[in-house]
Amino acid sequence: MSHSPSLPSPVTVLGLGPMGRALATTFLRAGHPVTVWNRTAGKAAEVVAEGAVLAATAAEAVAASPLVVVCVLDYDAVHAILEPVAGELAGRTVVNLTADSPDRARATAAWAAGTGAGYLDGAIMVPTTVIGSPATLVLYSGPESVYEAHRPVLQQLGGTAVHLGTDPGRAAAHDVALLDVFWTAMSGIVHAFALAAAENISARDLAPYAKGISGLLPDIIDDFAVKADKGEYPADGSDLLSAAAGMEHIVHTAQGHGLDIGVLAAAHATARRAIDAGRGSDSFARLVETIRTPSA
Amino acid sequence: MSHSPSLPSPVTVLGLGPMGRALATTFLRAGHPVTVWNRTAGKAAEVVAEGAVLAATAAEAVAASPLVVVCVLDYDAVHAILEPVAGELAGRTVVNLTADSPDRARATAAWAAGTGAGYLDGAIMVPTTVIGSPATLVLYSGPESVYEAHRPVLQQLGGTAVHLGTDPGRAAAHDVALLDVFWTAMSGIVHAFALAAAENISARDLAPYAKGISGLLPDIIDDFAVKADKGEYPADGSDLLSAAAGMEHIVHTAQGHGLDIGVLAAAHATARRAIDAGRGSDSFARLVETIRTPSA
Repeated sequence: MSHSPSLPSPVTVLGLGPMGRALATTFLRAGHPVTVWNRTAGKAAEVVAEGAVLAATAAEAVAASPLVVVCVLDYDAVHAILEPVAGELAGRTVVNLTADSPDRARATAAWAAGTGAGYLDGAIMVPTTVIGSPATLVLYSGPESVYEAHRPVLQQLGGTAVHLGTDPGRAAAHDVALLDVFWTAMSGIVHAFALAAAENISARDLAPYAKGISGLLPDIIDDFAVKADKGEYPADGSDLLSAAAGMEHIVHTAQGHGLDIGVLAAAHATARRAIDAGRGSDSFARLVETIRTPSA
Repeated sequence: MSHSPSLPSPVTVLGLGPMGRALATTFLRAGHPVTVWNRTAGKAAEVVAEGAVLAATAAEAVAASPLVVVCVLDYDAVHAILEPVAGELAGRTVVNLTADSPDRARATAAWAAGTGAGYLDGAIMVPTTVIGSPATLVLYSGPESVYEAHRPVLQQLGGTAVHLGTDPGRAAAHDVALLDVFWTAMSGIVHAFALAAAENISARDLAPYAKGISGLLPDIIDDFAVKADKGEYPADGSDLLSAAAGMEHIVHTAQGHGLDIGVLAAAHATARRAIDAGRGSDSFARLVETIRTPSA
């Protein structure tokens, strides 16, 4: 199983959903021999056409490569695949790019250590279509030696790879926090389009302005980050009271149109909680602490 | 009261909160004689130092200029100020830049029409610090003739002024929809920082990645706008089922740390409702319709 450093080493990809297929295809195009396996048949045709070898069993797929990349629905699925082949894992490295929570990442790392496998937990921060391009961003955590040993192969996924440290939950912790930004913002976008439609404004008409709003976020993120790390929340001209007033206008309008108002009502309730605690003249960034003390 | 077109015409600004002060200062710096008034004293010093005249009463302030710009907390405050001086409004133009809901904008426009005043409803889409700069964006709605007559003065606020049509609620409708994008995204940002802190990730460490996430939004906004206007929601590689799975990881992690999970739980509930209605393999954009049919 030894490979010359000058030859691309074999990679196994377990899981052939849209992301698994993108990973396998990218390794193939970088010249790596790629073995694939998926729990349900029929998803392999595309990557087999690109040159991947479809293993008959997960055990056969694991045995084919020193590096086993797993990207499936969640960590329950990871364990369902890997536990039956635990005996094959010693001496190999598992790079788990499945998305899940940091506590589960830590538990899976502990389990993998017991098999004698090296283990890295990773979080892919871009859509499938971006994999292999310079815009790719993948975060890793786990033992530095394991990361360094496999970095040349992992960098074939393109763009930026970042090792966040040895805590195996750290990549997943970044992942859930960033998905929090993402899915909450996405929820606002679909709600705004629903509200606009109720007011006879087409999504196309609203979109340029909505993009303008998204363009305000980077500076706010930097500003709030400074406030959150300092634990100091001066309003700088825009306070929680005015934020709550704005949210009330949205909720009032959405209610008038009979829309689902769950997300905004919850956001408003958190803001009200801070205001009721005497923080109304603080920055909205104060909510970083309000969220951490739900009963306060 | 006639003024040569070559001389900047007088402007009255009612309301001297942070935004009212920014408006007054910007008109002053453009050379307009500016009269100001505020319900509570003590906020005028800054603009008086810049050259504004502080009126003793709202009636005196209104009488001082053909154009009266109002920017206060909400439309209740607008009415509290303008109703007692209704007799002074005939022949003047009121530009109401106060933020509120579209139904209230329509009601205030109807009321203003009864006074003989011209009326424009406007929505300021940028923070106070941006007023006067090329990044300014103010949306207006109401009679085109009124807008055209005052456009040269209103353009002194800088940046982009857009007349959205004659429906006086249209600017406010855009405003609430865009504030919906904004405050929901902001709620995600503070929650992500809270979650990161609970995982011992500093806000400063998370911020660069969070900014990367915000950079994904413009393309998604354009994509979702096309889907929403067509009423067709193909998943294009990322469906509601995977979105809900991602949200569950966030909620699970946040619950484990005892955080307030109201916003994400509400967003997840809406996604679940669409999935339960058989839309799990649709794009997240499907929620534009789910939100419009809360009981479905």
